[in-house]
Amino acid sequence: MEKIRIAIIGYGNIGRYTLQAIEASEDCVCVGVVRRNGDADKPAELAAYPVVKNISELKDVQVAVLATPTRKVEEYALQCLALGINTVDSFDIHTQIVDLRRTLDAEAKKHGAVSIISAGWDPGSDSIVRTLMEGLAPKGISYTNFGPGRSMGHSVAVRAIQGVKDALSVTIPVGTGLHRRMVYVELEAGADFKAVENAIKTDPYFVNDETHVMQVDSVDALNDVGHGVNMVRKGVSGKTHNQLLEFNMKINNPALTGQVLVNVARASLKQQPGAYTMIELPVIDMLPGEREEIIRHLV
Amino acid sequence: MEKIRIAIIGYGNIGRYTLQAIEASEDCVCVGVVRRNGDADKPAELAAYPVVKNISELKDVQVAVLATPTRKVEEYALQCLALGINTVDSFDIHTQIVDLRRTLDAEAKKHGAVSIISAGWDPGSDSIVRTLMEGLAPKGISYTNFGPGRSMGHSVAVRAIQGVKDALSVTIPVGTGLHRRMVYVELEAGADFKAVENAIKTDPYFVNDETHVMQVDSVDALNDVGHGVNMVRKGVSGKTHNQLLEFNMKINNPALTGQVLVNVARASLKQQPGAYTMIELPVIDMLPGEREEIIRHLV
Repeated sequence: MEKIRIAIIGYGNIGRYTLQAIEASEDCVCVGVVRRNGDADKPAELAAYPVVKNISELKDVQVAVLATPTRKVEEYALQCLALGINTVDSFDIHTQIVDLRRTLDAEAKKHGAVSIISAGWDPGSDSIVRTLMEGLAPKGISYTNFGPGRSMGHSVAVRAIQGVKDALSVTIPVGTGLHRRMVYVELEAGADFKAVENAIKTDPYFVNDETHVMQVDSVDALNDVGHGVNMVRKGVSGKTHNQLLEFNMKINNPALTGQVLVNVARASLKQQPGAYTMIELPVIDMLPGEREEIIRHLV
Repeated sequence: MEKIRIAIIGYGNIGRYTLQAIEASEDCVCVGVVRRNGDADKPAELAAYPVVKNISELKDVQVAVLATPTRKVEEYALQCLALGINTVDSFDIHTQIVDLRRTLDAEAKKHGAVSIISAGWDPGSDSIVRTLMEGLAPKGISYTNFGPGRSMGHSVAVRAIQGVKDALSVTIPVGTGLHRRMVYVELEAGADFKAVENAIKTDPYFVNDETHVMQVDSVDALNDVGHGVNMVRKGVSGKTHNQLLEFNMKINNPALTGQVLVNVARASLKQQPGAYTMIELPVIDMLPGEREEIIRHLV
C-alpha cells in the first residue's frame, strides 16, 4: 500500500503531537518538517526526517499539516495550495472561519487541491457533534462547556500585561456555556500584584467572566495539557420535547488535535478540490481501511 | 423555496413520528402516505394527505421514507428506486447492512437515485459518533450501552412463545456493552408461568444475558417509548493514552428515528446516485438552511 505523504509545517506542541499521530498511523508517513530555523538545533526525534525552511524543499508532499499559529494559517495554506499540496489546519478564530474557507476554496480549486480548515476538537470534532445534535433535535438549546483545562488565548493575553513574567489561565466550566477563569501569574521582580490583578479583571478577555487571580512562584510547575468538554442539548425531535443529548471528553489537548489533523489529512485525499470544514466531510473518510469493512464494524 | 416532497411508506409508530417531523420541518412537505389498506380507516391526522396503496399513485415524490418492518425494506426500496425516487430507511439488522447497501447501490445508480440505509439512532446517529470516536482515539475499546428502554426484537421473540398473550422486554445497561433483560409477560388463561419463564431464558435472544421474567396483568399499562444510550471509548490518540470520550442520550425512540429519517431524506438530495450509510454523509447535509450560515453557527 502506498502511504500518505504528509509534511508538518511548524514544530511547536501541535507539530510534535502530529508527528506522533503520523508515526502511529500505518497508512501515513512523515516526509519532512518545515521550521523557521531549518535543521539547526534539530530535536532528537526528528533525526530520521528532513527538516527544511520551506515546503518547496520537500519532495512529493501530498498533504501539509499547518501546525503554525492560527494567524499564519492563511499565508502557509496559500503557499502550499499554489504548489498543488493539500492543506489541513486547526484555525480557531470562530468569526473568521467562513472568510478563510472562501479564500482557500478559490485557491484550492485553481490548483486541483483540497484544504480542510478548523480541524481540531473545537472547532473540529465538537463541531460535528454540535451539528449532529442540532439535526437530532432541531429546536432547543445547546451548551458547550469547556474545561477544566488551560486556555492558550487567555494565557497569552495575561502574559502581555506589564509586570507579568509568565501566566496560565485555566478554564473551569460552570454550566450553560459559562466559564470561570482561574489565572495563575508569576510576577516580575517589583511588580504590584493588585495592579496586575486589576489589569486582568478589566481585560476584554476576562471582563465578562468570573475571574480569580493567584500569584504563584512557578507557572511552569502547573503545566498540564489535559482539557475537557461537555456538550449538552435539550430539544425537540419532530413535535416531541425533552430529548436529552450529551457529549463529554477528558483528553490530552495537543494529542487529540494532532490525531484529528492526521485524520483530516487522510480525508483530504477523498474530496473534490476546494476548502471544507469538518462538518462537510463524511466521518468514514477520516478512518484508514476499506470502506465496507468500516461499515461492517461501526455502523 | 421549493419544499422537499416526501412520501411515507408504512404508517406504524415510525411512520406517525416521521409525519410529525416532516410537519415540523419548514423545508419539507408530506405528499402522501402508502398503507396496505389505502384510505380505509384513515386516521384523523392524515385527513389532509392522500393515502394510497402504492407509491406509484403519488405525484412528484422526491424521497420515500420506508417506515416498514425491517424485512420489507429491500422490496420497497427496489420498487421506489426503479421509479427514480430516493429512499431512506432504518434497516437495523447489523449483519446484513453491507449486503443491502450493495444491492440498493446498484439499483440506485441504474436510475440516478439515492438510497440512504440504516438511518435511525442505532444504526444511524450512534454510528456517526462511534466512527468519530474511533478516529479520535484509533486504539482502544468502545462500548455501546443501550437503555433503559424496550427492545422490539426481544419483545417480539417473547410474544411468539406459547402461552404468552403480550410481552415487553426492557433492556437495562449494566456497563461494558452488557445488558440485563427485564421481561414482563401477560399470560393466556391457563398458561404455566414457570414453563414460559424457562422458554424465555433458553431462547437464543436471551440465553447469553442476565434475564428476569415477571408476570403482569397488563403489558399495555407499562408501555413507554423512552430509550437511551451511553457510548464510551477510552483509547489512544497518536501515542497518548487515556483519552476519554462519551456520548449519552435519553430520548423518545420513534420521535428521534422519525427526525433522523427526515434529516437523511434532506441529505439524499445532495448526494451522487448510489446507496449510503449515515457515516458516509457529511453531517452538514442533514440540516436545512444555507451552507455558510450553518458553518458560521455550528463550526
